[in-house]
Amino acid sequence: MDNTITENKVTSVITSAELLEHWQGHRGLTRRVIEAFPEKELFEYSIGRMRPFAGMVQELLAIAVPGLREITSGGTEELNEHLDQATSKANILALWDEATAEINRYWALIPAERFHDTIRTFGQYEGTVYSSIFYFIDNEIHHRAQAFVYLRSLGIEPPYFWQR
Amino acid sequence: MDNTITENKVTSVITSAELLEHWQGHRGLTRRVIEAFPEKELFEYSIGRMRPFAGMVQELLAIAVPGLREITSGGTEELNEHLDQATSKANILALWDEATAEINRYWALIPAERFHDTIRTFGQYEGTVYSSIFYFIDNEIHHRAQAFVYLRSLGIEPPYFWQR
Repeated sequence: MDNTITENKVTSVITSAELLEHWQGHRGLTRRVIEAFPEKELFEYSIGRMRPFAGMVQELLAIAVPGLREITSGGTEELNEHLDQATSKANILALWDEATAEINRYWALIPAERFHDTIRTFGQYEGTVYSSIFYFIDNEIHHRAQAFVYLRSLGIEPPYFWQR
Repeated sequence: MDNTITENKVTSVITSAELLEHWQGHRGLTRRVIEAFPEKELFEYSIGRMRPFAGMVQELLAIAVPGLREITSGGTEELNEHLDQATSKANILALWDEATAEINRYWALIPAERFHDTIRTFGQYEGTVYSSIFYFIDNEIHHRAQAFVYLRSLGIEPPYFWQR
């Protein structure tokens, strides 16, 4: 380990590599929640006129990789929450796994000193790089927790929240 | 601003002060979610045999201040999720506000170089200071999101997720 990284770890709350691991840990749990849904209920089941979980997952996919691509390229992405390929649980899981690799790839292009840069994601959300990435993660935790309620109300035990 | 803080900000993903602000922003939203519940439903309404939101909020209160106290004192706290005072919405909101001030007070006692120390919270959860605090925040987002589903299924519009 080189000295720069060691020093960064000593004075940092969390390093870039640790934040990526934290997010990917959450994404692994979200993947298990997708898997826990029966095929039909993934696309159709909802409570209180909210979206079925498949719709929420498309939002998460629309944000993660395109959001990082914006951060790394400086360009503007469209928030596309309706993916033509998201027609089955297997396809959604495949999209999820593709995104996992893409997230790692784009993450490596964000140097630590960029996390406090100001950006505007999807042409409208103003913030810093770090606040945007925290939003991506928090929004995933938020919607996945709603899927926990869907599963419980279907009589299905969700994965453990603390299991990453 | 002194040079140490400036430097830390330049090389950090997020600073200690920013993480506190992030958490307290989430806690402000959670407070508005508590307020959005009718008195009776806060204590009684549930889906899928989960706890009513008042029970979840007691868990959040049991974790936040006692967890930070453990981090700052090195002692071991009991996870007490049943608070005698939590008998009404007004009392829960008062406990919440007390915790808000206590969190700020304990946070000031955690120097940046302690975030990578290993600790065991509540006598059983092994991790680092940063991973424990992230768990506290993520767990709050998780349970609050479940309350969003409760509210939606009661026909009540929850506060905006992005409003902090």
